[in-house]
Amino acid sequence: MGASGGTPPDVGSSHLTRAEAATLLRSADSLVLYTHRNPDGDSVGCVTALAATLEALGKQVRMICPDPLPSYLLAVPGSMAITTVPELVPADLVVSIDVSDPGLLFPLAAAEPGYFAGVHSLNIDHHFSNTRYARYNLVDHTAAAATEIVFDLIRELGLPLDLDLATSLMYGIVNDTHSFQNSNTTPRTLAMSSELVAAGANLSRIVFDLLLVRSAASARLWALVLPTLLFHDHERVAFLTVTQEALTRAGAGMTDADGLVEFLRNIRNVDLAVLFKETDPDTYRLSMRASEALDATVVAGAFGGGGHQRAAGCDISAPLAVAQAKVLAEYLGARQAG
Amino acid sequence: MGASGGTPPDVGSSHLTRAEAATLLRSADSLVLYTHRNPDGDSVGCVTALAATLEALGKQVRMICPDPLPSYLLAVPGSMAITTVPELVPADLVVSIDVSDPGLLFPLAAAEPGYFAGVHSLNIDHHFSNTRYARYNLVDHTAAAATEIVFDLIRELGLPLDLDLATSLMYGIVNDTHSFQNSNTTPRTLAMSSELVAAGANLSRIVFDLLLVRSAASARLWALVLPTLLFHDHERVAFLTVTQEALTRAGAGMTDADGLVEFLRNIRNVDLAVLFKETDPDTYRLSMRASEALDATVVAGAFGGGGHQRAAGCDISAPLAVAQAKVLAEYLGARQAG
Repeated sequence: MGASGGTPPDVGSSHLTRAEAATLLRSADSLVLYTHRNPDGDSVGCVTALAATLEALGKQVRMICPDPLPSYLLAVPGSMAITTVPELVPADLVVSIDVSDPGLLFPLAAAEPGYFAGVHSLNIDHHFSNTRYARYNLVDHTAAAATEIVFDLIRELGLPLDLDLATSLMYGIVNDTHSFQNSNTTPRTLAMSSELVAAGANLSRIVFDLLLVRSAASARLWALVLPTLLFHDHERVAFLTVTQEALTRAGAGMTDADGLVEFLRNIRNVDLAVLFKETDPDTYRLSMRASEALDATVVAGAFGGGGHQRAAGCDISAPLAVAQAKVLAEYLGARQAG
Repeated sequence: MGASGGTPPDVGSSHLTRAEAATLLRSADSLVLYTHRNPDGDSVGCVTALAATLEALGKQVRMICPDPLPSYLLAVPGSMAITTVPELVPADLVVSIDVSDPGLLFPLAAAEPGYFAGVHSLNIDHHFSNTRYARYNLVDHTAAAATEIVFDLIRELGLPLDLDLATSLMYGIVNDTHSFQNSNTTPRTLAMSSELVAAGANLSRIVFDLLLVRSAASARLWALVLPTLLFHDHERVAFLTVTQEALTRAGAGMTDADGLVEFLRNIRNVDLAVLFKETDPDTYRLSMRASEALDATVVAGAFGGGGHQRAAGCDISAPLAVAQAKVLAEYLGARQAG
């Protein structure tokens, strides 16, 4: 049957080179390309670019994402053909792209460790945490976006870049580097982007659609949230609060609060930026950002949360003023200890 | 004497190739590098990169800007050595960089057309409006930033990129492309940036210092200004207002309002975004941004202002509500005519 069929290439290890991965892709007549739930510009750009390439080589290709695409990703060329299927679809080769763990794919892959490796499968990813769960794995965590790896594969497969391919691949770069602003941007990222723009990718349009545009509801939400700005400790701590009332008045959802904690973090000399998001009465979900002077996980950890040194989160059940005072106390303690 | 001395290279025209400009630079033992008033990341990055290169070639170099540098530009390597001199300083070769018109340099150059061409001078620029005012001119308006041209000159001069050079040049790119988000970004911009990052330029740090960081006063100003958000015409028109009272309460200056009109422009389906900045009682300076559905100069022109189709400005003397109603009326008229 399909998923375990096809002719595997002569490879010595389950860790493939790009050339070996290209040979594996060439060897299959039918392929199904999976990407992770909660799709983003990188995951969608990867599957659409690779699918278009494989179709140009005469192969039968299906694209699958566990979740429906948000409307802003329907501008990625070919993305309308992505379907939501919560199970394994038989094919000569099953490919997962930008998926660090098979648990992000479908219930059976999450429930049975080894399930994915049990089929003829290829895992293409750039996450450091990738568990090499497939029978064949092409994992490169030095790639800023998974589309960097797909770009190289398209090269290996000998296909020229056209406008649609370049656009799909650029979505991945812009998404995962935040338009080259994140420190994961490398010379390779920029050199590849140079070729994508030369092939016609409209970088400024993609940046606008993916990063800059906001809804009117989001603008109204910011107008209601920014007046909650509070500074503490000589403007080294900054708080903002999103209440359910503000969401209702703005006609907004919690995703419209995206960017608010970065607004705080970008204030000069702020060491701890915290966005308090009211989830239930007297219950807040906190998003934290810390400067290099502080470890955000120390503050978030005090409330049972976690994350990274520069970005962490936790939940606190208390009235807002109490929650804010508790966070301030932990910050001051961490500051004294640090 | 210096400014008209030196040995001009054998060039057939006052429009030089890069190679000819490099020969001209090599032919001078002493050089003075000018950039424009109101310096920015591109102008400062250009003079520091070119000065360091020429000094490495054993030349005597002075850097001059008519205005003192704002503190955020003192992070550009070598920028501390830039001086403010309001006149011509004698040298074998006088170089202006990123200067579209000699009127931006010093009073005598502004007052006497031809004054600058009367000295042994080289004009290196990327502005479309450049008037080719020098004896020798290297003008390339396809360059997103003037540092793109300086990058090529450094190549011609045979100098390797080091960390400081790469950092200076990257300041220009980030400044003039708004971190690759503007439509002037080309394959050449990205390919050059790839080399700069490979040479050590800290892109994410430069983006933060140049574009992202804001003062606490600016954050307070946004918290006071965003609640003035007004929509009209089914959310196709959006207004924000900066009052003198808000500036005083925030402890902010008008430059802290930077980014507010872009915040408005980035709202989905907004065709006209206007920031009303109170300059005197009942007097407003308007910054406008228009979508592709509208010509901002039509609206601004109705009040004696001007600019470009996508970005324009004007002044209106009237109480705020009246000023806003007038703008709305002009917008509705332009919409009907368009």
